[in-house]
Amino acid sequence: MNVVTLLTDFGTRDPYVAAMKGVILSGVEHVQLIDISHEILPQDLQTAILTLADVWSYFPAGTLHMAIVDPGVGTDRKRLIVEAGGHFFVGPDNGLFGFACDIPGARFWEITGSFDSSQTFEGRDVFAKTVVRLCQGEPLSDLAKSIPTISRLEVPSPTFGERTIAGEIVGVDRFGNLISNIRAPEHFHGGVIRTETGRLCRLVRTYAEGNQDEVVAIWNSFGRLELSVREGSAREILPGDRGTRLTLEKSL
Amino acid sequence: MNVVTLLTDFGTRDPYVAAMKGVILSGVEHVQLIDISHEILPQDLQTAILTLADVWSYFPAGTLHMAIVDPGVGTDRKRLIVEAGGHFFVGPDNGLFGFACDIPGARFWEITGSFDSSQTFEGRDVFAKTVVRLCQGEPLSDLAKSIPTISRLEVPSPTFGERTIAGEIVGVDRFGNLISNIRAPEHFHGGVIRTETGRLCRLVRTYAEGNQDEVVAIWNSFGRLELSVREGSAREILPGDRGTRLTLEKSL
Amino acid sequence: MNVVTLLTDFGTRDPYVAAMKGVILSGVEHVQLIDISHEILPQDLQTAILTLADVWSYFPAGTLHMAIVDPGVGTDRKRLIVEAGGHFFVGPDNGLFGFACDIPGARFWEITGSFDSSQTFEGRDVFAKTVVRLCQGEPLSDLAKSIPTISRLEVPSPTFGERTIAGEIVGVDRFGNLISNIRAPEHFHGGVIRTETGRLCRLVRTYAEGNQDEVVAIWNSFGRLELSVREGSAREILPGDRGTRLTLEKSL
Repeated sequence: MNVVTLLTDFGTRDPYVAAMKGVILSGVEHVQLIDISHEILPQDLQTAILTLADVWSYFPAGTLHMAIVDPGVGTDRKRLIVEAGGHFFVGPDNGLFGFACDIPGARFWEITGSFDSSQTFEGRDVFAKTVVRLCQGEPLSDLAKSIPTISRLEVPSPTFGERTIAGEIVGVDRFGNLISNIRAPEHFHGGVIRTETGRLCRLVRTYAEGNQDEVVAIWNSFGRLELSVREGSAREILPGDRGTRLTLEKSL
Repeated sequence: MNVVTLLTDFGTRDPYVAAMKGVILSGVEHVQLIDISHEILPQDLQTAILTLADVWSYFPAGTLHMAIVDPGVGTDRKRLIVEAGGHFFVGPDNGLFGFACDIPGARFWEITGSFDSSQTFEGRDVFAKTVVRLCQGEPLSDLAKSIPTISRLEVPSPTFGERTIAGEIVGVDRFGNLISNIRAPEHFHGGVIRTETGRLCRLVRTYAEGNQDEVVAIWNSFGRLELSVREGSAREILPGDRGTRLTLEKSL
Repeated sequence: MNVVTLLTDFGTRDPYVAAMKGVILSGVEHVQLIDISHEILPQDLQTAILTLADVWSYFPAGTLHMAIVDPGVGTDRKRLIVEAGGHFFVGPDNGLFGFACDIPGARFWEITGSFDSSQTFEGRDVFAKTVVRLCQGEPLSDLAKSIPTISRLEVPSPTFGERTIAGEIVGVDRFGNLISNIRAPEHFHGGVIRTETGRLCRLVRTYAEGNQDEVVAIWNSFGRLELSVREGSAREILPGDRGTRLTLEKSL
């Protein structure tokens, strides 16, 4: 049974996601259609990338991930198939799949097949049909041509000092947790987090270790440094948002 | 494998949708349950009709579409099965399926079987069980009796002049695109759109052709004339909403 | 085919639900993954309990219900498997499954298997993997040890007088219906509902029986007394919210 995930900025109110699923089911009977999210804010590529990069590897090998956040729909930006880590990714070449460049052995194709497509909804008319053809076992070479690389989006990277890592908030989740671009360094023996207003935050192991209304830092379940408040919202208490800077000061 | 779609105004916070799915899964093991949307505003029949009419045909032949927006639940409004275009539709007779009257060969049945039903949730107690019986292959004649026609809701239609089509906005999507009831006429050689405040909008082929903050018109992926703003919201910039009038002025 | 339901306070914007589904699909191919809801407000255990208690029995026997509303994640609160009414429930021991104590023959286990788990996301690292092992047929005794009982949350109960039942609103649905903790008594011959401000509400059988802007009471589809307004919102018109008191005054 094929597993196909969908990640878009389409929301779930309008018929767009359902139309894509209808196209897939019209071509593939035995398929698991899994919504990663459709609540990406319109054209918020950075959150879409963060989401997909964090979650794809939890799915079984062979999963097809269809991701459509696509301000350039209908223009001549490329349409991609990416094969990386035993998974497939299908969508526009606008940086969405740039993280795959860091996966050893990743291969890239430009979709070249002709499609009877609207100018405004390639998710349904091109990408969903490409997913169908891949599920049906059509050879990649019939659908697409190999290309050497794909677009990457400039995403904020941390800066490494001798005893510090300076990063920033790159996402905020439903609980108001502020998620940073700092990952646990090797040989890490603890430290403290300083926010851009100078507040110091303790590094704890579980949300429950924080005191009421205390902003604590934690290595979250995707390996990122995150600011949290026990049964509360770090976004409101700190406050902070995407772009807020923070520094990990390592213990000796 | 049966495909069953669900379209409701129930939202996804309360247990209503899950209860219907539970009933279906209790009777049918191999089924694809696909949410079209549950975010229809409470009792907003017009949006439900627009959504279902636009999307149903993308699903495979034989799909059962269950649609429940039902202010008259528990009253003596009929309960319907509609067969049209090789698909089945199940739900209340309140105009939801009126668009099927325009599908050649459409046939209509009133559900007559008796159900142990609450007065407030026929979606679970009548319609989901009807879907189960249809999936199990029970003959339609055991479940329902043929009726000549069904309810239609008065929906706004465009007015055709010699060189103009006057319509109105009938929906607004997540991106703030204003979707009209005007469809591309035959032998169409271009034109311009005039809004009710006199603004002229260019007709373009892709969202990206618009300039920043320019409201453009486009034939959208479901064949409707739509007002859009590149990487922005036509609803906010125009501004406009359901009921806003617009006129397509055709070129010679 | 296994049926697995998911009920969380994770929302559908972030990658948390998808990560759990990915883990399940990595271990079980033929599975129906059904979202009960992910829109429970963060850490709102009472609504999660109400939702699960109302809906679980509509699913087929053998269904696994995974419910994760878990402020104590990473602490030493127990991790549970509950078997009740022919269904399985998996999640934290914080009151979520307390309603199962009232199901005859319910049995309780503490998950004892070791898991390579983050401290912050046991939904993915412990509970989803437990679901996989149960679907794969691993004996319960390999995964968990029997325990005599589980945590219950103090939930508001009605008070019974000779001719009255005094209860309170315990939930509000998308339509603004105010859902109480009062269930229909035996030998009930009708009555009237008095709200905490003294307003009297008629008991009706269908939503449509109410007059415009009239707050009526109705036995809802899950057997609870509910205050409703026809094509309107009882929450706004009454107004009322969780905790608002109401009394059923029975007729002789």
